[in-house]
Amino acid sequence: MIYCPSKTNEQIIKIFSALASKSNNVLATRAEQSVFDAIKKTGLFPKARYEKSARAIVLEQKKLKPSKSILPIITAGTADLPVAYEAKVTAEIMGQQTELVCDVGVAGLHRLLSHVPKLQKANVIIVVAGMEGALASVVGGLVSCPVIAVPTSVGYGASFEGLSALLTMLNSCSSGVTVVNIDNGFSAAVTATLINKKIDAGK
Amino acid sequence: MIYCPSKTNEQIIKIFSALASKSNNVLATRAEQSVFDAIKKTGLFPKARYEKSARAIVLEQKKLKPSKSILPIITAGTADLPVAYEAKVTAEIMGQQTELVCDVGVAGLHRLLSHVPKLQKANVIIVVAGMEGALASVVGGLVSCPVIAVPTSVGYGASFEGLSALLTMLNSCSSGVTVVNIDNGFSAAVTATLINKKIDAGK
Amino acid sequence: MIYCPSKTNEQIIKIFSALASKSNNVLATRAEQSVFDAIKKTGLFPKARYEKSARAIVLEQKKLKPSKSILPIITAGTADLPVAYEAKVTAEIMGQQTELVCDVGVAGLHRLLSHVPKLQKANVIIVVAGMEGALASVVGGLVSCPVIAVPTSVGYGASFEGLSALLTMLNSCSSGVTVVNIDNGFSAAVTATLINKKIDAGK
Amino acid sequence: MIYCPSKTNEQIIKIFSALASKSNNVLATRAEQSVFDAIKKTGLFPKARYEKSARAIVLEQKKLKPSKSILPIITAGTADLPVAYEAKVTAEIMGQQTELVCDVGVAGLHRLLSHVPKLQKANVIIVVAGMEGALASVVGGLVSCPVIAVPTSVGYGASFEGLSALLTMLNSCSSGVTVVNIDNGFSAAVTATLINKKIDAGK
Amino acid sequence: MIYCPSKTNEQIIKIFSALASKSNNVLATRAEQSVFDAIKKTGLFPKARYEKSARAIVLEQKKLKPSKSILPIITAGTADLPVAYEAKVTAEIMGQQTELVCDVGVAGLHRLLSHVPKLQKANVIIVVAGMEGALASVVGGLVSCPVIAVPTSVGYGASFEGLSALLTMLNSCSSGVTVVNIDNGFSAAVTATLINKKIDAGK
Amino acid sequence: MIYCPSKTNEQIIKIFSALASKSNNVLATRAEQSVFDAIKKTGLFPKARYEKSARAIVLEQKKLKPSKSILPIITAGTADLPVAYEAKVTAEIMGQQTELVCDVGVAGLHRLLSHVPKLQKANVIIVVAGMEGALASVVGGLVSCPVIAVPTSVGYGASFEGLSALLTMLNSCSSGVTVVNIDNGFSAAVTATLINKKIDAGK
Amino acid sequence: MIYCPSKTNEQIIKIFSALASKSNNVLATRAEQSVFDAIKKTGLFPKARYEKSARAIVLEQKKLKPSKSILPIITAGTADLPVAYEAKVTAEIMGQQTELVCDVGVAGLHRLLSHVPKLQKANVIIVVAGMEGALASVVGGLVSCPVIAVPTSVGYGASFEGLSALLTMLNSCSSGVTVVNIDNGFSAAVTATLINKKIDAGK
Amino acid sequence: MIYCPSKTNEQIIKIFSALASKSNNVLATRAEQSVFDAIKKTGLFPKARYEKSARAIVLEQKKLKPSKSILPIITAGTADLPVAYEAKVTAEIMGQQTELVCDVGVAGLHRLLSHVPKLQKANVIIVVAGMEGALASVVGGLVSCPVIAVPTSVGYGASFEGLSALLTMLNSCSSGVTVVNIDNGFSAAVTATLINKKIDAGK
Repeated sequence: MIYCPSKTNEQIIKIFSALASKSNNVLATRAEQSVFDAIKKTGLFPKARYEKSARAIVLEQKKLKPSKSILPIITAGTADLPVAYEAKVTAEIMGQQTELVCDVGVAGLHRLLSHVPKLQKANVIIVVAGMEGALASVVGGLVSCPVIAVPTSVGYGASFEGLSALLTMLNSCSSGVTVVNIDNGFSAAVTATLINKKIDAGK
Repeated sequence: MIYCPSKTNEQIIKIFSALASKSNNVLATRAEQSVFDAIKKTGLFPKARYEKSARAIVLEQKKLKPSKSILPIITAGTADLPVAYEAKVTAEIMGQQTELVCDVGVAGLHRLLSHVPKLQKANVIIVVAGMEGALASVVGGLVSCPVIAVPTSVGYGASFEGLSALLTMLNSCSSGVTVVNIDNGFSAAVTATLINKKIDAGK
Repeated sequence: MIYCPSKTNEQIIKIFSALASKSNNVLATRAEQSVFDAIKKTGLFPKARYEKSARAIVLEQKKLKPSKSILPIITAGTADLPVAYEAKVTAEIMGQQTELVCDVGVAGLHRLLSHVPKLQKANVIIVVAGMEGALASVVGGLVSCPVIAVPTSVGYGASFEGLSALLTMLNSCSSGVTVVNIDNGFSAAVTATLINKKIDAGK
Repeated sequence: MIYCPSKTNEQIIKIFSALASKSNNVLATRAEQSVFDAIKKTGLFPKARYEKSARAIVLEQKKLKPSKSILPIITAGTADLPVAYEAKVTAEIMGQQTELVCDVGVAGLHRLLSHVPKLQKANVIIVVAGMEGALASVVGGLVSCPVIAVPTSVGYGASFEGLSALLTMLNSCSSGVTVVNIDNGFSAAVTATLINKKIDAGK
Repeated sequence: MIYCPSKTNEQIIKIFSALASKSNNVLATRAEQSVFDAIKKTGLFPKARYEKSARAIVLEQKKLKPSKSILPIITAGTADLPVAYEAKVTAEIMGQQTELVCDVGVAGLHRLLSHVPKLQKANVIIVVAGMEGALASVVGGLVSCPVIAVPTSVGYGASFEGLSALLTMLNSCSSGVTVVNIDNGFSAAVTATLINKKIDAGK
Repeated sequence: MIYCPSKTNEQIIKIFSALASKSNNVLATRAEQSVFDAIKKTGLFPKARYEKSARAIVLEQKKLKPSKSILPIITAGTADLPVAYEAKVTAEIMGQQTELVCDVGVAGLHRLLSHVPKLQKANVIIVVAGMEGALASVVGGLVSCPVIAVPTSVGYGASFEGLSALLTMLNSCSSGVTVVNIDNGFSAAVTATLINKKIDAGK
Repeated sequence: MIYCPSKTNEQIIKIFSALASKSNNVLATRAEQSVFDAIKKTGLFPKARYEKSARAIVLEQKKLKPSKSILPIITAGTADLPVAYEAKVTAEIMGQQTELVCDVGVAGLHRLLSHVPKLQKANVIIVVAGMEGALASVVGGLVSCPVIAVPTSVGYGASFEGLSALLTMLNSCSSGVTVVNIDNGFSAAVTATLINKKIDAGK
Repeated sequence: MIYCPSKTNEQIIKIFSALASKSNNVLATRAEQSVFDAIKKTGLFPKARYEKSARAIVLEQKKLKPSKSILPIITAGTADLPVAYEAKVTAEIMGQQTELVCDVGVAGLHRLLSHVPKLQKANVIIVVAGMEGALASVVGGLVSCPVIAVPTSVGYGASFEGLSALLTMLNSCSSGVTVVNIDNGFSAAVTATLINKKIDAGK
């Protein structure tokens, strides 16, 4: 996996090639379209594809067996989608099946409540929310599995680029909520997939 | 009304006397027991009483007619009670009837949901919550009246003395939520009572 | 209502259409001219108009009866106008009559004082101010109705994108002042209109 | 479970009694010795004990079957121990076996490295660290299971009561690290035990 | 002049003696009663007196000629008095005549307005205010002389120990307002007196 | 005077015209070249000129008599010059004579020391400094007149857009230092000129 | 040496010329390509070269004797390279030999450990790291010489432009770690070279 | 070396004994008198002494040969002394000769200038300063050796417990200044002694 910001296209291509040469799946996150164009132009990775909504470049060289478990990825609002898609792409390249549940922020609680039965079957849930980030606490109170909360940098003035949602999630009064960095869908997905892998293994 | 912190007992007694001399009701907020003792010792205010749970001294010199409206004051947890009681005492000395709804934080959503029919009848609601402060958004999404959110300084480390709850409430994605300063039950109660007074007047 | 930032034009059009299909009035806030152009290009909303000064797209499908009450929206300076216009457009699409009082910041107190008689007739007032945000406290001291304070991100260095005005307003020593998020004219207008609706209903 | 700070002894005893009456195990965290004394004085809970190093009151009414899995709880320094003990007591009352690995901060890397084989067998690991909080990243790089990082409020001046460790952990460049609130050993233990329960169930 | 906090009594006495030995006036600010007691106990400074309301020890060894100018020191509320008294004592020991104008915060604008004619005669004005600190801007708009603003650490939650008032004052939209550190009545008084000295000299 | 940022060209021209119509001198600060071009294009202000280094538009309609006093404006480094020029232009349009002393930051103390005799003759001094902002304290210790410190937003990473210099200056241990907002050369110049005017009047 | 940001090309050329005229080596840091082009266009400095990876302009007019000592410059990740190169160029123009050790962040500890023997021979080491900045502590624990830590502004959301790495490094529990400003490779290199010079002199 | 805060007396004694048993010199920093009393009471360390001004417990079991070099430790004011003494005691127990230069803050520059010839002979200098912390930059500009800056938590309101001095020092415009954590005299002394040891070795 490669985190693209602050790297030049040359550096990204070099790391991408090194990882690809070992026949691994490769994922480059926060990649601009121009980075993908540069990678395509090398002609070396015909199978690489650009997932625009996730801002990610995906090179799937070996298809992993789909997981038994399904990982719910829940978003509060439309503007949280890019981070949710980053989590989705990351999980899927590791073989994890996912289900995206969109636009169920706490201002419209009934939409969330209709998904509860499904959520209660999960081993672990990812909650992606900006603005006030209250969704993680509410979901945490409705299920008994771990919730991985991803604050996003979405919001008005005093959201301070995601700080408000981050603090909300850290202060969650629901047990079982842990937090990753702002907009870090990747890390949430890796952690959730690690947990599911161990549980699936025992089934 | 007197805000006691940073004032000496002498100063508080002086202001208290000045206000009381006009036959008004007098309220001293954030008052330690020792302040009340000092006021009692003057012998001047036999009717003054100390509301321990609200940390307030109340001198009710004229009984106001009880309001038609009832003001719900909702708290997320037990530790938010002192601020809720400050709001309750403040509203009541202005003649506003109140109803306290305790311990309905978002980690136990079903407790809150059982109160929704009652909340939907209110003209305005006060929500008192510390930690992640998510309760204001959730309540705001369940009713169509204004919600006045009071962040409290309750919480673990990164709650930063109420800052986390304050930011959450400011970033609420529910319409109709406005915010007062951390722990400021007094100001929330005054605003809510002003609103109810105007509405009651028309009924 | 749609908050446009962080949403793609496709997403905005989709939500806009969904809302419009129910014959509701639709409001899209913080919309660039280019968003409006994209909406016009669909040819679906001939009645949609762009309110440039408010940065808002308005689709008024049903004309609401004008409110009995008039909502004063007061600004400290010229640079606060876009936020004030967002409040104005929002209130008006909900049927609320408004009156804009501009450029009455506390550095020129006499300008404000000449408006006091009018302000004292209001049920609720919106105050929009950046820089030091002192206007909310001053207005709050001059009237006996609730004041909804909107800090704006206008100002020199240590205004920290509206944080200074936000803190000022939260710390207001005037009773009855509540605060919304930085630059959030929309939320202030919704709250004020909800209050006025209830009061108008009784008259 | 009860979080004691900001609650009066009366409130704690009331909640403690309510929880105990359902024959559950009860845990009161951040409890001063004086809280325990008040609980003992009621005479109602002869089996309650005070875990001084964890600052917790434990009432174990039903002994849970010990887990198959062992949960490593790692601390950087001696001063992080109270938080680690809170995690240990919490996990154990839920039936989770634990192993405390103390004083393996990154300034003495060899001490940590000697524990790596053991750590690599775990399903999930709790890392408790103050000051610069670097231990979570280092452990995260040495194992392939999830790491739950608990920042502590231990440290010199610019540690800002745990903020420094919190930020370090949120910015961890190791995959699989998630974070809980400052000093929140309780929440880390609950999450880790939830994960282990599901994995143990499959074995 | 000696700033007492963080100094031991021994250190304070040593510096006090050194300054006194040159027949200067000596001022020790932020001095606890116990510091004064220690100084008295030396028996060396029979003329030293303790100004309790200003938390200052004053040793006036030479009486300076009273200034022609009068320095207004204005406070927003009762709780700002200790800082105002520190300014007053500091100015007076330098020979500056002062006039204290108390409790004229912006929530009660009419009290302030009655003092305007007097304020307009001053060469320079000190404004002491906590909470939202709006008084400095309002005064700055009413006079045409420099205003030295002293934020105080008085206030509710989000005043952050004076930070809110400090930011308000720095962002003042009135010309001629400069700011000193939180609670620093001493520095404001020195600056104001330096200005008045030069102006008085020319008269 | 007009502060240009956040205002449209139309608004600036309107205010500019209103001020100019009273035959006053007019100053527009933080003005882009494009604002000046728009003003020129109106053809109404042939005498308006653009001071590029100060980012200011100046319309001098009446020449004020030059002041007796000379106001030193000192900068720490080359990058502080735009703010210093803003102060210079502002003072000069009010008739205040100025002298710019450039590039005398504390890393090269000898350059500063050579200017001390001149500085000691001033009634008041403006110090403009970014990065660590130490120059204000050093100058304050070398002279006995008031120093008005202007922090600038110049500097590396942890200068936080001027916050570091601002805090340094507020914490100055030299008496007589007061502070204005970050980059606010205008306000420093107005205050300094007000002081000099009163002193010059007496001479 | 010249720090380019906030300076105009004219100012940079003027300072560059002044420094070059004394036959010194000249270094301009944080220089855009366009600055270098402007310098080349003057035709005055045919030997000036642009070090793109270090964002620096170098004019080496006298070749210094290479140092006996070798200065290791260690980076955590690829994105830290520009800051490391700034340190490298700075040290080399002062005659200091350097060795760059790249991409040895704590998430892959084995890569770092393979360099330990070499690091233990150094007199002083520069560690450049963003994100969580843990590398400085780990290196500090592995060697017994001083470590100069350079936080970089690289990272996800809550890295706050380098603040996270800065705090981590300041809170390092390893002895001998000192810190420079965010991204300030220049200052780290100067300090390290000063230390090495004195040690080399004695050998 | 032991950092005492957050450790119980039992823990400190245990670590102290472990370190002492290897015949090393032992240093316990930030130790209250009561900690020393507890250590004395064990009867195990008759040679342990308490350095009150440095708040340190010293057990010197082997006398190290005094260094050739002398390390200047400079303080801005009296209140910075405890941190300076911590540095002094730390250096001396490692055999480093020191010279304390007190009370030479930048508000009284002449006092500092009289020490310059002595400072210019040093290999490395420690500067301890609170409030605005400007002393480090000024010293850095006067010498050509490395300066290790120690911000202290001394100061008025907006010093924010040393944050102001820390930022000032990080933003120093003098080359060769590096910074340690707030109040961390220990770490500065260790680093300075490490540097001197290498230089002394070559002489």
